[in-house]
Amino acid sequence: MTLRQMFDPSAVAVVGASTTEGKIGYEAMANATEFDGPVYPVNPSSDGRLFGEAFVASVTDIDDDVDLALCCVPAPATPDVLQECGEAGVGAAVIYAGGFAEAGEEGERLQAAVVETADQYDISLLGPNTSGFVVPETDLLCSFASGAEKLPPGNTAVVAQSGGVAHALAFQSRRQGRGVSAMVGLGNRANVGFTETIEYFDGDERTDAIVLHVEGTDDGRALLEACRASDTPVVAYKVGQSDVGEFAESHTGALTGDHELYTAGFAQYGVPTVDATDALLDAAAALGNSPAPDGPNVGVVTAQAGPGIIITDRIQRAGGFLPELTPETRDRVDDILPGVTYTSNPVDTGRPMPAFGDVVTAVAEDDAVDIVLVYELYEQAMGFPVESLDGLAERVDKPVLFATDGIEEDMAEDESALADVGVPVFETPERAADAAAVLARYARMQGSAEGTEVVADD
Amino acid sequence: MTLRQMFDPSAVAVVGASTTEGKIGYEAMANATEFDGPVYPVNPSSDGRLFGEAFVASVTDIDDDVDLALCCVPAPATPDVLQECGEAGVGAAVIYAGGFAEAGEEGERLQAAVVETADQYDISLLGPNTSGFVVPETDLLCSFASGAEKLPPGNTAVVAQSGGVAHALAFQSRRQGRGVSAMVGLGNRANVGFTETIEYFDGDERTDAIVLHVEGTDDGRALLEACRASDTPVVAYKVGQSDVGEFAESHTGALTGDHELYTAGFAQYGVPTVDATDALLDAAAALGNSPAPDGPNVGVVTAQAGPGIIITDRIQRAGGFLPELTPETRDRVDDILPGVTYTSNPVDTGRPMPAFGDVVTAVAEDDAVDIVLVYELYEQAMGFPVESLDGLAERVDKPVLFATDGIEEDMAEDESALADVGVPVFETPERAADAAAVLARYARMQGSAEGTEVVADD
Repeated sequence: MTLRQMFDPSAVAVVGASTTEGKIGYEAMANATEFDGPVYPVNPSSDGRLFGEAFVASVTDIDDDVDLALCCVPAPATPDVLQECGEAGVGAAVIYAGGFAEAGEEGERLQAAVVETADQYDISLLGPNTSGFVVPETDLLCSFASGAEKLPPGNTAVVAQSGGVAHALAFQSRRQGRGVSAMVGLGNRANVGFTETIEYFDGDERTDAIVLHVEGTDDGRALLEACRASDTPVVAYKVGQSDVGEFAESHTGALTGDHELYTAGFAQYGVPTVDATDALLDAAAALGNSPAPDGPNVGVVTAQAGPGIIITDRIQRAGGFLPELTPETRDRVDDILPGVTYTSNPVDTGRPMPAFGDVVTAVAEDDAVDIVLVYELYEQAMGFPVESLDGLAERVDKPVLFATDGIEEDMAEDESALADVGVPVFETPERAADAAAVLARYARMQGSAEGTEVVADD
Repeated sequence: MTLRQMFDPSAVAVVGASTTEGKIGYEAMANATEFDGPVYPVNPSSDGRLFGEAFVASVTDIDDDVDLALCCVPAPATPDVLQECGEAGVGAAVIYAGGFAEAGEEGERLQAAVVETADQYDISLLGPNTSGFVVPETDLLCSFASGAEKLPPGNTAVVAQSGGVAHALAFQSRRQGRGVSAMVGLGNRANVGFTETIEYFDGDERTDAIVLHVEGTDDGRALLEACRASDTPVVAYKVGQSDVGEFAESHTGALTGDHELYTAGFAQYGVPTVDATDALLDAAAALGNSPAPDGPNVGVVTAQAGPGIIITDRIQRAGGFLPELTPETRDRVDDILPGVTYTSNPVDTGRPMPAFGDVVTAVAEDDAVDIVLVYELYEQAMGFPVESLDGLAERVDKPVLFATDGIEEDMAEDESALADVGVPVFETPERAADAAAVLARYARMQGSAEGTEVVADD
């Protein structure tokens, strides 16, 4: 089984396409027609056209090579639809409908029947019980949700057990000025689960980081093995530290399982975990846009002490380490900025100033520093040190993260200048610190941390 | 000492006003002139006008009753300036300069001298070593930071030990579509500290919630007593769980102290604590725009299961409780929505739908529920149930929080409709859950929780 036909299809069929606005078969078709390739509405009881495309009665009637079928029919009709897909040589299908394994015995039987057909014809099944997936770069909008057409392309692949969470993550990513290489809601994971999608996106050239939303899975080991085998960094958000078992089971038919076991397992297999949707995307922005960190030592440069204290505290608590800067660096900072407020780590310049970028460069070039985090409240007259930051991460071969607060529209231009030169930007001191701490933990997990004893406070 | 002259002055003097762009004396004057009342630039070595106002040589030369002086002079010049303020009958002053108690012995002597003069003349001193304060409603911009003029009025008073954090919080509040009744950076707290500002804003009719950013204080008991005496809800963010002592001391001359003692103290005195700037503002939005919750029992209604599981997990871990709904409510939900996905608590409708608002109403009217939290991914065709939510919180006399993710500009209109009817809106499932948990903890701290045993998981 390959997921190429799912995520990079030559042609798409929308089975159960409907002319009734609000129905999934209508909304899915509305979104699907954004795709560059041919899209066929399939419905035996409709004729005429939908969004300019002529209805056909069955996927078996399509002359084209249809790779992907979007199944917008209710659960009981799904096995027959899938049979026709198999006969037509369709290689991938999305099943949106609920009423399968998450819904009791009858549903489980239905799901087993569907999976059997899929296995027989080697069809990759996304779902059932999912809101689908989106690949923004190719306008492949295989979701019935509104707003999917506005998701911008990016380099993070979102793989969520829940379709709702997949969409929430994608919308949040847009809100942060980022984007996704793909957004996938796995739903019941009939035969496409975490392992298959991780493997696929690890080989996807648009993807530089993979984020997982995990409620629970029966095959934790396979998931962990797939993570370890991935050259692309993976970050995970495991939900369910308290007892949400019954509700979760009713959702995607999965037991949430032991949270601590998952966290320990992920750590052992090189996957940093986080505890919120926004933190998950921040971690991906840091990992996906940075050279791999060599260790957990974070050099912090701040233009305001208060946020610097927040950042220091937070990094230390989350497994990062603020090393002493070398005497050479301290001298250098003193030369750049005589009387600077605080020349230890963090370096606190007291206010934004023209030499701020030089201070950042000095800290970034310090051998004791593996990861650089810069915080600066936006000051109109000063702007951000874009020139100093341009190419800095590549040159010193270390992640360089930037965080700010300010008036959104005033700093929009400077923020996109930073984005243009590949610097990941974060919204609050805490979110930046958490992202830096993920890099620190990632470095240690990857076994590349050397020589520094790090003791987390909690 | 009253802070009326600080936060509601008749006239303002900018001492050390400067014609040199970029200098604090220029930026402070630029911001101050937005104020409706008279603003006088003071500088013995300048003449002519600045922003249309004629320079005077000393505050003692001003015929008007100047309540507030913004001191933009270096530390060594400050004692003389304050002496003149005293002679001129100025009741409040902001000292921006650093170089006082945070900067060693000589600075401590300077600060003592300034405080002595202030005490002699009964002057309230904000700072030294602060970026000042802002009252957006009256355009009273006593900060030299850029962007202060764009901060919108709101009903949260931000009181931060650090001027940088005060600004970060105010900017974040704007970004969230909220605003502040005032934003204050305390700095060295020469004679205006947490207690004085809490008392003042408790009596301020524009303020419905007070948020505190605390690094450390020598007089924790007075702070806690002021919190307990406040009728206005107070939320605190105590920074420094790990060792940031040396850096923090260099900042505002304060020891960060024992974090657990602070947290326990706050809890005992009725102040919920949070662990991030964004959570602090979210907590204020929940507390300041809701009827006081009677207990920690949260009823959750979600249109998507995945975010509902996240919310459930998070509330339970943070001290909230999801009670069983009464049989009457479950029947009612079943009637409204036959075959609804999950009718326990959370109620999961599976998708947004026209009856969504009726389901929310049913849960809000359940006697087992003290706090209502609604989550819904934005769906263009459906919008938000604004009509059902309008006045609901007041009618059932319970907090009703709303959270969503979606395409920002698509949902902007619906979001401001919710804001217009007083419903606090949150950005992610986690942030909404954390805000609901703050309400739950607040209810228990206020001793109004009855009859429900709640055991937090960690």
